[in-house]
Amino acid sequence: MPLTETQIKSLQGRADEIKARYDAFVAQGLSLDMTRGKPSSEQLDLAEPMLASVPPGDHTSPGGVDCRNYGGVDGLPEMKALFADYLECAPDQILIGGNASLTLMYDAVQQALTHGVPGGDGPWLKGTVKWICPVPGYDRHFTICEHFGIEMIPVEMGEGGPDMDQVEALVAADPAIKGMWAVPRYSNPTGATYSDDTVCRLAAMKAAAPDFRIWWDNAYGEHHLTDRPAPLSNLLSACVAAGHPDRALMFASTSKISFAGGGLAALGASAANIDWMRLHTSKRTIGPDKLNQLRHLRFFGDIEGIRAHMMRHAELLRPRFEAVIRTLRRELEGSGLATWTEPEGGYFISVDTLDGCASRTVALAAEAGVKLTPAGATFPYRRDPKDRNIRIAPSLPSVEELTVATELFALCIQLATLERM
Amino acid sequence: MPLTETQIKSLQGRADEIKARYDAFVAQGLSLDMTRGKPSSEQLDLAEPMLASVPPGDHTSPGGVDCRNYGGVDGLPEMKALFADYLECAPDQILIGGNASLTLMYDAVQQALTHGVPGGDGPWLKGTVKWICPVPGYDRHFTICEHFGIEMIPVEMGEGGPDMDQVEALVAADPAIKGMWAVPRYSNPTGATYSDDTVCRLAAMKAAAPDFRIWWDNAYGEHHLTDRPAPLSNLLSACVAAGHPDRALMFASTSKISFAGGGLAALGASAANIDWMRLHTSKRTIGPDKLNQLRHLRFFGDIEGIRAHMMRHAELLRPRFEAVIRTLRRELEGSGLATWTEPEGGYFISVDTLDGCASRTVALAAEAGVKLTPAGATFPYRRDPKDRNIRIAPSLPSVEELTVATELFALCIQLATLERM
Repeated sequence: MPLTETQIKSLQGRADEIKARYDAFVAQGLSLDMTRGKPSSEQLDLAEPMLASVPPGDHTSPGGVDCRNYGGVDGLPEMKALFADYLECAPDQILIGGNASLTLMYDAVQQALTHGVPGGDGPWLKGTVKWICPVPGYDRHFTICEHFGIEMIPVEMGEGGPDMDQVEALVAADPAIKGMWAVPRYSNPTGATYSDDTVCRLAAMKAAAPDFRIWWDNAYGEHHLTDRPAPLSNLLSACVAAGHPDRALMFASTSKISFAGGGLAALGASAANIDWMRLHTSKRTIGPDKLNQLRHLRFFGDIEGIRAHMMRHAELLRPRFEAVIRTLRRELEGSGLATWTEPEGGYFISVDTLDGCASRTVALAAEAGVKLTPAGATFPYRRDPKDRNIRIAPSLPSVEELTVATELFALCIQLATLERM
Repeated sequence: MPLTETQIKSLQGRADEIKARYDAFVAQGLSLDMTRGKPSSEQLDLAEPMLASVPPGDHTSPGGVDCRNYGGVDGLPEMKALFADYLECAPDQILIGGNASLTLMYDAVQQALTHGVPGGDGPWLKGTVKWICPVPGYDRHFTICEHFGIEMIPVEMGEGGPDMDQVEALVAADPAIKGMWAVPRYSNPTGATYSDDTVCRLAAMKAAAPDFRIWWDNAYGEHHLTDRPAPLSNLLSACVAAGHPDRALMFASTSKISFAGGGLAALGASAANIDWMRLHTSKRTIGPDKLNQLRHLRFFGDIEGIRAHMMRHAELLRPRFEAVIRTLRRELEGSGLATWTEPEGGYFISVDTLDGCASRTVALAAEAGVKLTPAGATFPYRRDPKDRNIRIAPSLPSVEELTVATELFALCIQLATLERM
């Protein structure tokens, strides 16, 4: 949407004031970081008692496994049951990984490339591999594709997920399209949750590649900011119902539930996919860290334990999101200079400036001591064709810091727009 | 060596007695497992206090890092310093991995295959890849090669390492030979330690492939059974001195020091190799489990702490090795039916029967309730061309169980030999 005459006049009329406020920020010598979705210390403190949940002399799982020794390549049965509840599938549809779902996703991509997947005709690397990438999206997903030379096809995200007309047309037409990224709930960075219709269409759509897979990164499955969780259909069940039982690879982790770096990751998928992943995993490791599984099991108990814990996270995150949104509204509402998401969960707020203003906004903020995720990071190859999307990560700074940083950020958007006029 | 007339007569003269003793074992219904190098509970107990070394409220590294959060893809600086002492290199030549050195080795192979290594000309997968595999060797090494379709070339192990004349000739002649496995100290399964001469020649030899690498799996670097550690030259230093600074990829882990499954792994290599591995690792993970690094750091303190700890392991392992060797000597010495290693460290005893008797020996033992590593497991593709090598893992059973199991094992060797006569 182009600016109205009134909006342009208003901005230009305030040019000196904006510049003066910005200079005042520069003079302050701020040092704030809103780049990454890192939990704050207060959030990490919530799981602190977990550090004592496997004390000396008490290292045996409910099923009698000595968690200190080798073995159990797909995880403790009790941990599989807990992640099965988390991902809404059966325990034998779960494989527990190490400390990062990113690693599980990477490994699944790598195995598909070098060895193929069930129902396919061998290593994907034999031919060109293309991937559906909803944009804006998660930079680390795109990095994996880039690392392996996978051709990324961006598809625009809407309120209920990616543009499904486009996804369906692409996937039906091109057998080189083997995979797709998705962050189905409170998507990174827009916060959108995939609608029932989107899930249904993803499960049912015709794929030219018989071994097409969806990397369903349910990173924010229980990461609600309100007490009304955004409803999300189960992709695995939908795929089974639609006759594509092996299409879904669902991922989750406790990185933003227990400890980032000291958490657990899991894959949920059909038995055929789990067998495939277990076989490959068994070449790479003798087994995961079961002591850490036991810590999690004892601390959370069950899915209700996780949910109760996540309500305490929400209490810490909600004011931070509110501080950013309140400040954006105060500084930019009605200006026509930016739109932003007001998510009900997850870790990010996505801001769209006017076309061509994002990189300059990020640069101006950096000059004033506020680090933002580089413009373009939310797009394949770090290229936002419209140079307008910026991802804000409000979890780490304090409410006071966020208020200051967002005020500055809003000034940078105005300055960048003025410069382009 | 063929049997002498006396040895044959002695064996045949005792045939009925051997059969009767074997039948008596079968009647006992034993259930013993000597298949894998798993630490015993008593060994794991030694590290039990480590479970309390990062208690609630005390999660900050000496350098001030909150170990609960994301970051530090190559590990805590203090942990890098400790592994640098362990692998005898500099801290900036170290990358800390997850809980398994097998995973680091796998990842290094995979990255070389899909992306190439520093000094090479791209992905190894572009052409045929061959690998030097000292035999008998570690089955899981061979499994990684087989998984990726790497052609394995066996080279016989001797007392001071593999037959270096053969290694040098092969590596100099064939540019498809890109890699080599080595377990340099207390080798799996023979217990042999690479001599200074072997290390020197490995470092200096001409390689037809400019990007040839040695996967130096120093799994038993501090795992001595005596108070006279077998001396081992440093491969990385030797490679630097010989003008091949990037040839060595050295691996270690605490799997058999702290907790198997709950330990730490590390890579030691030239800065170029570490940069390469760090770059690739950063695509796969946001960082390792630093809480577990901190636990290890606090529990062991430094390399001397690890060494003192390993002397306590030796006290538990030594009687077990002695029980097996004592029984083998009692039952088989002078019989000509088998030779075995009497290692001064590590986790295994390697037994050679007469040609063609290993599989049958393992089968007879299984029928009597004693599980042994399958014959052939110590060779590429699980094929021992002479069907004679059997790996014994004495760490897990008790001394009493090992004595019984080894007596039965010796009977099985005699029975298998009788059957082949």
